[in-house]
Amino acid sequence: MVDRLATRTQSISPFYVMELLHRARQLEAQGRDVIHMEIGEPDFPTPATIVETGIQYLQTGEVKYTPAAGLAELREKIANYYRQHYGVSVAKERIFVTPGASGAFLLALGVSLNPGEEILMADPCYPCNRNFVALFDGDTLTIPVDASTHYHLTEDLIRQHWTAKTKGVLIASPSNPTGTLIDPIRLKQAIEMVNSSGGCFYSDEIYHGLVYSTKATTALQFSDDVFVINSFSKYFGMTGWRIGWLIVPDAFIEATEKLAQNIFIATSSLSQYAALSAFDQHTLRDLERRRTEFAQRRDFLYENLLRIGFDVPIKPQGAFYIYADCSRFTDDSFQFAQEFLEAEAVAVTPGKDFGMHHSERYIRFAYTTSMDRMTSAMQRLEKFLNQRSLCR
Amino acid sequence: MVDRLATRTQSISPFYVMELLHRARQLEAQGRDVIHMEIGEPDFPTPATIVETGIQYLQTGEVKYTPAAGLAELREKIANYYRQHYGVSVAKERIFVTPGASGAFLLALGVSLNPGEEILMADPCYPCNRNFVALFDGDTLTIPVDASTHYHLTEDLIRQHWTAKTKGVLIASPSNPTGTLIDPIRLKQAIEMVNSSGGCFYSDEIYHGLVYSTKATTALQFSDDVFVINSFSKYFGMTGWRIGWLIVPDAFIEATEKLAQNIFIATSSLSQYAALSAFDQHTLRDLERRRTEFAQRRDFLYENLLRIGFDVPIKPQGAFYIYADCSRFTDDSFQFAQEFLEAEAVAVTPGKDFGMHHSERYIRFAYTTSMDRMTSAMQRLEKFLNQRSLCR
Repeated sequence: MVDRLATRTQSISPFYVMELLHRARQLEAQGRDVIHMEIGEPDFPTPATIVETGIQYLQTGEVKYTPAAGLAELREKIANYYRQHYGVSVAKERIFVTPGASGAFLLALGVSLNPGEEILMADPCYPCNRNFVALFDGDTLTIPVDASTHYHLTEDLIRQHWTAKTKGVLIASPSNPTGTLIDPIRLKQAIEMVNSSGGCFYSDEIYHGLVYSTKATTALQFSDDVFVINSFSKYFGMTGWRIGWLIVPDAFIEATEKLAQNIFIATSSLSQYAALSAFDQHTLRDLERRRTEFAQRRDFLYENLLRIGFDVPIKPQGAFYIYADCSRFTDDSFQFAQEFLEAEAVAVTPGKDFGMHHSERYIRFAYTTSMDRMTSAMQRLEKFLNQRSLCR
Repeated sequence: MVDRLATRTQSISPFYVMELLHRARQLEAQGRDVIHMEIGEPDFPTPATIVETGIQYLQTGEVKYTPAAGLAELREKIANYYRQHYGVSVAKERIFVTPGASGAFLLALGVSLNPGEEILMADPCYPCNRNFVALFDGDTLTIPVDASTHYHLTEDLIRQHWTAKTKGVLIASPSNPTGTLIDPIRLKQAIEMVNSSGGCFYSDEIYHGLVYSTKATTALQFSDDVFVINSFSKYFGMTGWRIGWLIVPDAFIEATEKLAQNIFIATSSLSQYAALSAFDQHTLRDLERRRTEFAQRRDFLYENLLRIGFDVPIKPQGAFYIYADCSRFTDDSFQFAQEFLEAEAVAVTPGKDFGMHHSERYIRFAYTTSMDRMTSAMQRLEKFLNQRSLCR
C-alpha cells in the first residue's frame, strides 16, 4: 500500500523540547523536583474577574454557538482596546475572534496562502508559525537575523529575499524566542515594502501586553492592509481557554467570514463570554501587577545568565523568554539541555526548535516560574557548569 | 495589485441559509415571532452534570494548556465508551480530543490529503465537509444518491467513481440533511472497498447518539483502518463548548500528534474537564430522555409533512433533520424558503446548501425546537400553502 500520509506532514518538524518534556515527566515520576523553564505558558492563574464572568455564563446552562466571527460585544471591546491602547481605529468587521492565536493563523493563511507560495520569516522564530505555512503546502524562507537588527527582519533583508513565489512576510514582535521588539521605524518600512510589492504582511502580536520599560507598536499604526494575530493567552492569562483574535484587511473580510463558518463554526462561547471581562479596569490592574513581576523576573534572569557566563547581546524587552548564547560552554545546545536536565533537573528549550541559524549555540529560558524557583535554577546551573568544567 | 486571496477561497461556498438567517434576524428586530427550523443545534441546555463539572474546574482558576491530544483521562473515557456502547476496542493513543468535529476534520484531512487529491461524498451532504477538503486544496466529487440507498454511497458507486486522483471516501451516518443511516452491510462493503484500494475512509459519526428505534454502527466495528470523526456537540449537548474527537489509524498517530501540537496547541481545557462528566450515568440518563423527545418530534414532524403534501421517501432514523421533497409546491426550494419566511416567519434551510442533485426540490427542516413551536410552524406552513394555491 502506498504511504497515505499527506506530504505536508514531512515538512512539519516535531518540537525537540517535547523529548525533554517527556524526560522531565519521567524524572518527576521518579520523585525528582524538576524546575520548568521550558514552558511558554504564564504560571499565573486566569484573573479572577474573567473566571467569575465565565462561571456566571456557565450557570445559565445555555452554552450555544455564537456567530462565526465572534460575539459582537467582544469584537467591539477589542476594537475599543485598539483605540485606547494604541490610538488606532479598527472597524469591528475586520476583527475575528478565534480559537487562540492558532485559529488566527489558520484563518489568516487559509484565506491568503496558495500551495507553493512562500512566506519570509526571521531565523530564529517560533516553530508553529512555519508549520502553519506547511499546513497549506506553502514554503517558509527563514532569513538569518542577529542582534544587529534586534533579531528582526528589515526592509533590506525582505527586498533581498523577495522572489516571484513570495506571498508575504511574517514578523513576530516581541519575538519568541528572543523577546526582542522590532524598532517602529523598521516595522513601518517592512510593511511599506510588503504593501508596495503586493504581498501580505502578517504581524504576530501575541506577546504585546508583556513589554517592559517601553511600548509595543502594532502594525495597524502604519497600515490597514495587514493581518494582525493576537491572543488572550499570554498577557490576559487565558492559555487553556483557547481564545485569540485576528484582524484582516478589508479585502479579506468576506473570505475570512466564510472560512471561519466552515472550519470553526465558532470559538468556544464560554471563553468568549469570559473574555468580555478581560478589558475591565479591575482585570487590567491585575494584569499590570503581573507585568511588573515579569519585568523583575526578566531582570533577575538576565543578570544571572550574564554573570554565569552566557551571552545575551540585547536585553529582551518583552514576552517571557531569554535566548541565551551558551557557546562558551558547548557547541551542542540540545545535548547541553539534555545533560542539564539529567544532572540538575532543570528543563530548558534547545535553540534548534527555533531555526537553523547558529541554533546549536542557544538555549531559551522561559521566566514563567517564580523568583524562588528561578533562584534555585540558577544555583543548579552554576553547579552543573562547575561539575562540567571539573570533568574536562 | 493582484488578487491576494488564496484560490481555495473561491471553492468554498457560502451557506445560503445565512441569507435566510440574516433576514430572520431583521424580522425579529421588527417584532416578528420567527420559528427557527433551520438551526442545526439542539435547543436543550448542556446537561447540568457537565456544567457543574465545568464550574468546579473553573473555580480552581488554573485553566492551563492540556497535552495536545487531550487529557489522558478523557481519552480513556472515550475508549471506554466505544467498548461499552459498540463493543469495540480502541487504543487511547488513536484518540485525539479536538475543538469540535471541526477540529477533527482539520486534523484528519491535514494528515492525509494532498492538494489535487479527491474525496468522494454523497450528494446531498453537509457542506462544511466539502469545504474542509477545499481548505487543503483537494477536490470533492459528490455522487448523486437517492432513497434507494438511503441517501448513502455504496461499494458500487465508490468503485464506479474511483480514479487515480481519489484519496478516499467520506460517509456521514446519520446523514445531514437526510437523517438516514447507512445499512451496516453497506458500510462494511464500502470500507473494505476503500481499504483494498489503498485509500482513506473517513466516517463522520457526529449524530451517532441521536438515533431512534435502531442503533448506529461505527466504522470501527469493521476496520481499524478508518478515521472516525465524532463530537460532544449534538448528542451530549455541548455545541458552544467546541469539543469533539478524532480516531485515526495507527499509521497516522505520530503525524496527527505533531499536527495537533502545531495547529491547536490543545483543545479548551475547560471543555475537556467538563466533558469528563459526559459519560456519567446521570448524564447519560438525561441524554436518553432528550433522545426520546427528539424521537417524538421526528414522528410528529414526519407525519405532518406527509399529511401536508411533502414527500419523504424514507423515514429518517437519526440526527434531527427531515429532508423533505417540496416539488409538489415549487421548482425552486430556495425561493420557497424565502417566501415562507417572509409570509409566515418560519426559517428552514434550502436544499441547495447540501448539493446539486435535485436540491432545488428539497427543504431541510430541523426539529431542534419544541413540539409547541413545531405545531405552530405546521399551522403556518399550511396557511402559507393555502395562500399560495389561492394566488395561482
